[in-house]
Amino acid sequence: MPPQPPPRRGPRGANLGQLGTFNQAVVLHAIRTSPGVSRVEIGELTGLAGQTVTNICRRLLRDGLIVEGEPVAAGQGKPRTPLAIDAAARHAVGVHVDPALTTLVLLDLAGRTVSAETFPTPRAADAPATVREVGRRVVDFLHAAEVPRHRVLGVGVATPGPVDVARGIVDNPPHLPGWHQVPVREELELAVGLPVQLEKDVVAAATAEVWAGTFAAASSGALIYLGTGIGAGLVVDGEVLRGASNNAGELGQIVVDQGGEECRCGQRGCTRVVVSAEEMLRRAGTGAPPASLAELDVELRRLYDRADAGEEHALDVVRSSAVAVARAALLVTNLLDVERLVLGGPYWARMSPYFFAVAPAMFAAHAAAHDIHPVELLSTPVGEHLAAVGAASLVLDRAYSPRPGTLVIAPATR
Amino acid sequence: MPPQPPPRRGPRGANLGQLGTFNQAVVLHAIRTSPGVSRVEIGELTGLAGQTVTNICRRLLRDGLIVEGEPVAAGQGKPRTPLAIDAAARHAVGVHVDPALTTLVLLDLAGRTVSAETFPTPRAADAPATVREVGRRVVDFLHAAEVPRHRVLGVGVATPGPVDVARGIVDNPPHLPGWHQVPVREELELAVGLPVQLEKDVVAAATAEVWAGTFAAASSGALIYLGTGIGAGLVVDGEVLRGASNNAGELGQIVVDQGGEECRCGQRGCTRVVVSAEEMLRRAGTGAPPASLAELDVELRRLYDRADAGEEHALDVVRSSAVAVARAALLVTNLLDVERLVLGGPYWARMSPYFFAVAPAMFAAHAAAHDIHPVELLSTPVGEHLAAVGAASLVLDRAYSPRPGTLVIAPATR
Repeated sequence: MPPQPPPRRGPRGANLGQLGTFNQAVVLHAIRTSPGVSRVEIGELTGLAGQTVTNICRRLLRDGLIVEGEPVAAGQGKPRTPLAIDAAARHAVGVHVDPALTTLVLLDLAGRTVSAETFPTPRAADAPATVREVGRRVVDFLHAAEVPRHRVLGVGVATPGPVDVARGIVDNPPHLPGWHQVPVREELELAVGLPVQLEKDVVAAATAEVWAGTFAAASSGALIYLGTGIGAGLVVDGEVLRGASNNAGELGQIVVDQGGEECRCGQRGCTRVVVSAEEMLRRAGTGAPPASLAELDVELRRLYDRADAGEEHALDVVRSSAVAVARAALLVTNLLDVERLVLGGPYWARMSPYFFAVAPAMFAAHAAAHDIHPVELLSTPVGEHLAAVGAASLVLDRAYSPRPGTLVIAPATR
Repeated sequence: MPPQPPPRRGPRGANLGQLGTFNQAVVLHAIRTSPGVSRVEIGELTGLAGQTVTNICRRLLRDGLIVEGEPVAAGQGKPRTPLAIDAAARHAVGVHVDPALTTLVLLDLAGRTVSAETFPTPRAADAPATVREVGRRVVDFLHAAEVPRHRVLGVGVATPGPVDVARGIVDNPPHLPGWHQVPVREELELAVGLPVQLEKDVVAAATAEVWAGTFAAASSGALIYLGTGIGAGLVVDGEVLRGASNNAGELGQIVVDQGGEECRCGQRGCTRVVVSAEEMLRRAGTGAPPASLAELDVELRRLYDRADAGEEHALDVVRSSAVAVARAALLVTNLLDVERLVLGGPYWARMSPYFFAVAPAMFAAHAAAHDIHPVELLSTPVGEHLAAVGAASLVLDRAYSPRPGTLVIAPATR
């Protein structure tokens, strides 16, 4: 054979090293999502042998992650002992930093929100000082929640993208003016004294849906997030698609209304401009642009009040915005062959009835695979603090979700 | 605990059952993509223990899938024996059925095209008869190639979508008029006597790129396919994203030119109309619409000849089409945070210089994560028969590619 080029990077082999960790995560997942299951049922759910399930449950009981209930008679067989997560065993903090508001939540191991707090995003001298101020609020928040520090796994932070997840830096988001290369992870770790994980808001929000089981039965799902911007969280086989640098989900540059305003990308009527609160108010002709984000929020609520009351011009604006959202959602659906599409985010609740008035017919007509399978459209079951709950879910997800990819031998670090 | 809802579907555990099969696929992949590697180098590439590599190589040699070269002195250590795929050991047939042309290819195990043939798609009484006629051509093609039947693993077929992969049926593609619920797999299996695998054209084309190693170093990649329609193949961590029903990759409904023609979706200037050959010719004002697909092909070639010669109006048409393709590519890039974008398909070669004249600047200005990482733009290395090579790659990929997902225990069939 002639001389050959150097070997290329490729798939890694698998060995037994991670098998135990993986299967423990699988069993914990089964108990968390089906509270009250017995060991026998866990075996059926997971395909694991009875002895394996028994050993793993012993370990989970010893570590205090699960609890046993009273044995229940089960036909002629041995009584079955129901198992459940010990929700108070572990917690995670979620922080969502938005241009206008910052939200903190504390999740328990069952994924329930133990406490939550929302306040105007601090306006400090610069972005790092803002992050430190948020850190002080997190410390007070944890103190008030009275959860022992050793039961708090860490802090997840969600911000508008792009973010540099590997370095824990918020890069230069159009929706956070004045934020350039902000070392959010480092500042927060110093301020709070817990490990911090940074992700883009839509990636965090999609993780909330995965952790809450919203996409459990869907092999391909998407979340459309309506906040200061519009973005998508993509979920394939129960894992959030992060992309090459954890910045997947940008939807702002899709043309959805050809009569819309000009966008900085050179086109007219991108989602970025059409779905934005500013543009909706401009089209509604409510006078001078709002002076602050708080004022904008009030004006937008008034616009929806007028539309809800049937005022024609307000209805037009809100409806065309709903059509724009549906077009963006349809595009994501067709590109990823999505079977379950979830919508959420701070600006979703008021838009929801207008979206559901137009979207089903648009999906019936234009979803590419509609002959093969229906596309379910639903509002997020996670609620109003979606991105903050998502930020906390990042921490729980990293610690406890099973991932087949971890069964493969990690590359040597040289 | 109160009565509980029935257990939900969730992740399955892992056991040792599939470990051997998985690791064999990993070793075969290393040998195929790095011809001439030694056992020691395979260990370094895959992370597998020396004894495991030795055992697997013994099995691959015995099955005739690989061959050994002459041992080569390696410094002071033992001489190393280079290993390579026995390319002739296995083959796969790829069939690409396009409205105008049908292409057949025969790939060997190294992924090389052993023979290829293109002919006008037969016009039989109905679609099933057309498929049977294609089947007869496959039988003749295999006969002419003189490859022993036992060395042919099967036939892959790529057609426009939507397709019902589970049932092997082409559903109702806008680009194959008269094709409704056509049982392609069944008809071809009867005609050829080999197992048949059906996929959408862009999914097949993306599989060709994966098998050829185009996305080897990219965790998130996309292929933009320019054929009778425009579509995207999406690749994450070396696996093609198929979506809920294997119909991922629809790009036709993205607005890329607001002055464009009206589309059946109710918007103007969707990729579907702007990038189509018909629309390019209409804008070029070449007279009556072409009477046949062959004529359209000739007209389109003339349009490019005029543009290549610098004729202004032709240049305008071709350039605006290139901008439209770049916009669609940018959208896919931002949604999936793509780091390597590949372009191909029958209409790509002529457009390529116009695309590369406009796209890099557009990506520099509008790729959302451009501060974090560059986006590589390149022409497919697979060549003109991309979808047919992809169809054959489907067969090789299913038989030989390692997938961490297979390490998980399969659900019981009830």
